[in-house]
Amino acid sequence: MTQTKVGIIGATGYAGEELVRILLNHPNVTLAAISSVSFEGKKLSEVYPSLYQICDMALTNEDTVIAQSDVIFASLPHGLCEALAKKAVGQGKKFIDLGADFRLKDEADYQQWYGLEYKEKELHTHSCYCIPELHRERLGKDISIIGNPGCYPTSIALGMAPIAKSGLADLNTLVIDSKSGVTGAGRGLSQTTHYPDCNEAFSPYKTAVHRHTPEIEQTLSELSGEPVRVTFVPHLLPVNRGIVSTMYVTLKEGASKETVRALYESAYQNEKFVRVLPDGDTANLKHVKFSNYCDISLHFDSRTNRLIVVSTIDNMVKGAAGQAVQNMNLLCGFEEDAGLCLVPPAF
Amino acid sequence: MTQTKVGIIGATGYAGEELVRILLNHPNVTLAAISSVSFEGKKLSEVYPSLYQICDMALTNEDTVIAQSDVIFASLPHGLCEALAKKAVGQGKKFIDLGADFRLKDEADYQQWYGLEYKEKELHTHSCYCIPELHRERLGKDISIIGNPGCYPTSIALGMAPIAKSGLADLNTLVIDSKSGVTGAGRGLSQTTHYPDCNEAFSPYKTAVHRHTPEIEQTLSELSGEPVRVTFVPHLLPVNRGIVSTMYVTLKEGASKETVRALYESAYQNEKFVRVLPDGDTANLKHVKFSNYCDISLHFDSRTNRLIVVSTIDNMVKGAAGQAVQNMNLLCGFEEDAGLCLVPPAF
Amino acid sequence: MTQTKVGIIGATGYAGEELVRILLNHPNVTLAAISSVSFEGKKLSEVYPSLYQICDMALTNEDTVIAQSDVIFASLPHGLCEALAKKAVGQGKKFIDLGADFRLKDEADYQQWYGLEYKEKELHTHSCYCIPELHRERLGKDISIIGNPGCYPTSIALGMAPIAKSGLADLNTLVIDSKSGVTGAGRGLSQTTHYPDCNEAFSPYKTAVHRHTPEIEQTLSELSGEPVRVTFVPHLLPVNRGIVSTMYVTLKEGASKETVRALYESAYQNEKFVRVLPDGDTANLKHVKFSNYCDISLHFDSRTNRLIVVSTIDNMVKGAAGQAVQNMNLLCGFEEDAGLCLVPPAF
Amino acid sequence: MTQTKVGIIGATGYAGEELVRILLNHPNVTLAAISSVSFEGKKLSEVYPSLYQICDMALTNEDTVIAQSDVIFASLPHGLCEALAKKAVGQGKKFIDLGADFRLKDEADYQQWYGLEYKEKELHTHSCYCIPELHRERLGKDISIIGNPGCYPTSIALGMAPIAKSGLADLNTLVIDSKSGVTGAGRGLSQTTHYPDCNEAFSPYKTAVHRHTPEIEQTLSELSGEPVRVTFVPHLLPVNRGIVSTMYVTLKEGASKETVRALYESAYQNEKFVRVLPDGDTANLKHVKFSNYCDISLHFDSRTNRLIVVSTIDNMVKGAAGQAVQNMNLLCGFEEDAGLCLVPPAF
Repeated sequence: MTQTKVGIIGATGYAGEELVRILLNHPNVTLAAISSVSFEGKKLSEVYPSLYQICDMALTNEDTVIAQSDVIFASLPHGLCEALAKKAVGQGKKFIDLGADFRLKDEADYQQWYGLEYKEKELHTHSCYCIPELHRERLGKDISIIGNPGCYPTSIALGMAPIAKSGLADLNTLVIDSKSGVTGAGRGLSQTTHYPDCNEAFSPYKTAVHRHTPEIEQTLSELSGEPVRVTFVPHLLPVNRGIVSTMYVTLKEGASKETVRALYESAYQNEKFVRVLPDGDTANLKHVKFSNYCDISLHFDSRTNRLIVVSTIDNMVKGAAGQAVQNMNLLCGFEEDAGLCLVPPAF
Repeated sequence: MTQTKVGIIGATGYAGEELVRILLNHPNVTLAAISSVSFEGKKLSEVYPSLYQICDMALTNEDTVIAQSDVIFASLPHGLCEALAKKAVGQGKKFIDLGADFRLKDEADYQQWYGLEYKEKELHTHSCYCIPELHRERLGKDISIIGNPGCYPTSIALGMAPIAKSGLADLNTLVIDSKSGVTGAGRGLSQTTHYPDCNEAFSPYKTAVHRHTPEIEQTLSELSGEPVRVTFVPHLLPVNRGIVSTMYVTLKEGASKETVRALYESAYQNEKFVRVLPDGDTANLKHVKFSNYCDISLHFDSRTNRLIVVSTIDNMVKGAAGQAVQNMNLLCGFEEDAGLCLVPPAF
Repeated sequence: MTQTKVGIIGATGYAGEELVRILLNHPNVTLAAISSVSFEGKKLSEVYPSLYQICDMALTNEDTVIAQSDVIFASLPHGLCEALAKKAVGQGKKFIDLGADFRLKDEADYQQWYGLEYKEKELHTHSCYCIPELHRERLGKDISIIGNPGCYPTSIALGMAPIAKSGLADLNTLVIDSKSGVTGAGRGLSQTTHYPDCNEAFSPYKTAVHRHTPEIEQTLSELSGEPVRVTFVPHLLPVNRGIVSTMYVTLKEGASKETVRALYESAYQNEKFVRVLPDGDTANLKHVKFSNYCDISLHFDSRTNRLIVVSTIDNMVKGAAGQAVQNMNLLCGFEEDAGLCLVPPAF
Repeated sequence: MTQTKVGIIGATGYAGEELVRILLNHPNVTLAAISSVSFEGKKLSEVYPSLYQICDMALTNEDTVIAQSDVIFASLPHGLCEALAKKAVGQGKKFIDLGADFRLKDEADYQQWYGLEYKEKELHTHSCYCIPELHRERLGKDISIIGNPGCYPTSIALGMAPIAKSGLADLNTLVIDSKSGVTGAGRGLSQTTHYPDCNEAFSPYKTAVHRHTPEIEQTLSELSGEPVRVTFVPHLLPVNRGIVSTMYVTLKEGASKETVRALYESAYQNEKFVRVLPDGDTANLKHVKFSNYCDISLHFDSRTNRLIVVSTIDNMVKGAAGQAVQNMNLLCGFEEDAGLCLVPPAF
């Protein structure tokens, strides 16, 4: 079988590098070209010595990646991908944006939270936002661009989808307390992510004003069929990888523990990458690190009638590169788990 | 001035050792005796080599500590302190229990959450639960026993007290998402606190069933004058020390950001150990570690009308040994901050 | 092609679990049976929740593993594997011992350092100690048992082999300062590996008396053709995985930097799993974690005429399970890198 | 008693901030002024929120600090302190340089390793390099400038002094393998100290070319009375604080374990801040963190006749700010341990 040629724009960012790690072992694709603005001309292994003798490919520019690839992954700051996607689509290529430029349906949300407008409105009609377990039917023939979901929104949407759809909870009581490892902040240097500032520290950040909020609300509103407003507070966790979202929502009358558990088990029984943990177990980011799994545990506070959902993913895999590959697999007709059978190491 | 003789029962647990660290530099007291069941006969510095040549005192038994001390601190598993307190009080001594045996006023709560009864009911009339900033007037002449507050409840009570008293929030919407460093689990070995299990991991535990729940509710109910039920979920954080409690509560009509901030600043303006952070700052456990401070930051989610309070302490200091010394200072008429001017190291 | 059936005795220890992780994705084998003394009857995923829905196989006993497998891996405390190997070989099976029972040729060394005697001396004639890059020619038809090398000795032997063989250094000046992540201490609980004791701590242990010393000396003596005595000091590093060995040896007259580098590059030019880093780079355990690579960097202290070799591996992969699989591949005639194309994640 | 006025130039670097932490609780001094080039005009607590309400002093400039202080501490990059010291001494003040400008006696060493010349040669006749336990007699009336020792050299000099003086070891066999926490790299941002690069990583750096080498050799040469050349390799340790130096040296004939231990115990028996650990114990940075102690443990490799000395300090305290305060105490006639009775926390 011929291999599909894939390329990565922004290959030296954390998500870009993680894409390389996954794509190198993918049975259906060949890594054709990679680019970086900061390191153009260098070998990728000069930036990431872990890849020495494994991927010594030279970093080129964006146009070259688009020209040489059938599928292009882009991992760039928001605002840069519409133009690139237009070029790619114009050449008949598929484009998967790991950034925010194709995630929000309502342009007003994009303007409000990102401060930019959509310049290529027509382009958005060929794009879709896709968490495969929830939206894979969206990937029809007309779709050439995927807005790959954000890390926090992935953990939250998968954790809330069954209850949100069911109507058994009052979604406007939803409080989401998320915690992310430091790779979530990217490769760029900052005082906050300087080791001595970050190690043996813990704190929320962007409290109730994080840009992932409209993306979370978009999915929950679609699932429930009514407008949902949530409180979302992310925290910076002194670990390299992983997100844990602890979500609190008030159940409606008659929503029993058994009913809710059955909803979740039924929703995900055929989903390889979502594991609803047995009663009594608690999701831990340790158990999904370096893998494409999302673990969900369910807890009930009968004293206050709240459902507590704990959802955990590896922010770099299911929360970025892994999910992007899963989306590519669907878009290209590969096995959905191709290249993604990553067993999470226990320690 | 003569020094007050102090003793520690359970000196080899984490809170006991932290008491030693603080009391050694306390201007008004002399460490007279220390005990340990597991290490009786050994020197404390054999158990904690950090104390070599600093505190080579031998570990003795409980009766000796009581006999040789004016004030006795006890840091033991629950259920063991009533008998010891009785002995101490019988000899005219003061007794500060860092465990749970004198924290809950309502014996039914103690029975429900700890599975034990109070055996010495009369003794409880001479005891009080005391977070100094909230309850220092309780420490009258009749008090010879202090139920020193738990770590989570301290962070939560200080963080919620001004708003709880004010009546400006609907306390039954309160969701408390707390995160604690691993010393909170104590010195005893467990798989959960084995380094490779705990490092690069994160998870809630005892989700909505933690024993600190009734203590939290007791304080909030007293402050607000009405019964309060909360959802409380603690998480294990891969750091040695510190607690961050992120608290979410819906504000009532007319509770403005300015009103709420003024409440907090006014409540704590004369409190050395509670720092209400300036608008825009966020509490971080890094900034209070190894000190007796509680840092509080206030955040408002205007989209959902929720107040978000972030409260952080060092679980071993303000959450245990430091607060116990602060209570001793009040009980003995020392300066309230004696021995507690610990500057938190920046890194 | 029919799959080879493999089994693991001691599957719930860290090396055992890592074997599972690797073998599950190995193209030539099927995991047939796994055993554990402590957890017999449980599912492996109950012990390691990371494996939930990935490997829910039940843990059985040792005899069952031997009976159902063509190749048996054993990861047990020393002293237990001779009897098991005898059984396995008696049934015509291959046996790979990840422990110490088949590593030392000279029984006197085993007696001195492990305090035990070989009970099945004949068995040792069918066994060999094998670091593939150095000893793969040993795996002849008569070999049915492999003494899989220890973690420290692997990092050290690969780091020293070219210079040791060359005769260009005075090996009796060799000082080896090694640092290992905490998984090296195993899954068993101890105060030393209790998170708050281990985190933000660092110290040597078993200073100059570690049991890997005779194994190190055995290899270096063989390579150099003369008896070698080294000073070996391991340290416990607050990370989960990885070993760095920093080795100091005085060069003989005329051993230039260029000569030595050429020796290393030549020795390993065809070895996939040993990467001699370019001049100016320094080996870092970060770059080999979760992979089967050994990275080696060369440094020259011209002021003192010492060669400094830095060698790093993942103690659980190249230092245990990965090397065991590499040995199995050779023994069974699979591709040497089958199942071992693990790309080290950059973070 | 009147308080001595002290000032800090470079107060927002790590060593500067640590000086603040210590000096705020020093019984004999008042913090008069602090400066920072980057943050002039800001409050120190805006840079270090841990100091909020504890030290809200504004950051000023260098001249102001010199003018307002009796003793000036400077913590700046090398090359900047001669000019400042000249000013300070010209105004009759004492000057303690935590940098490298007054450490090396031989200007040729300074030129070779730092690439700069001494511009104020006369000034150096009023300065001295001082590790109090080794050199306190140097602090005569003519001394107004102290070259405060580097972190690595302090751990090494204290660890080697007794054996170096004794002549019982061959110092030219000395190999020093040091490991330092990340604060040793300072507050400035770099890829190496970015959390995800640094966490779960370990590596040597500046292998055998670190600038502390001539300072180490200067002290060992003085102590032994003969020129000493060492191999010194520092490593970056994923902890915030602390240095462990593991030192390997060949003993001469007749140097018994007992003789060597007696040398150490005798050398340090009256030194509060140096603890020679009992036979069988091993120095661990955990036991000295946040304190001014240096712990030393002695190990003997009888198989190779090497002495192994493990020496550990807190790089920010005994390795920088604490030792600077100890030097000030001696220079000003305060108790040598004033402000330095910092009990190392056990966890």
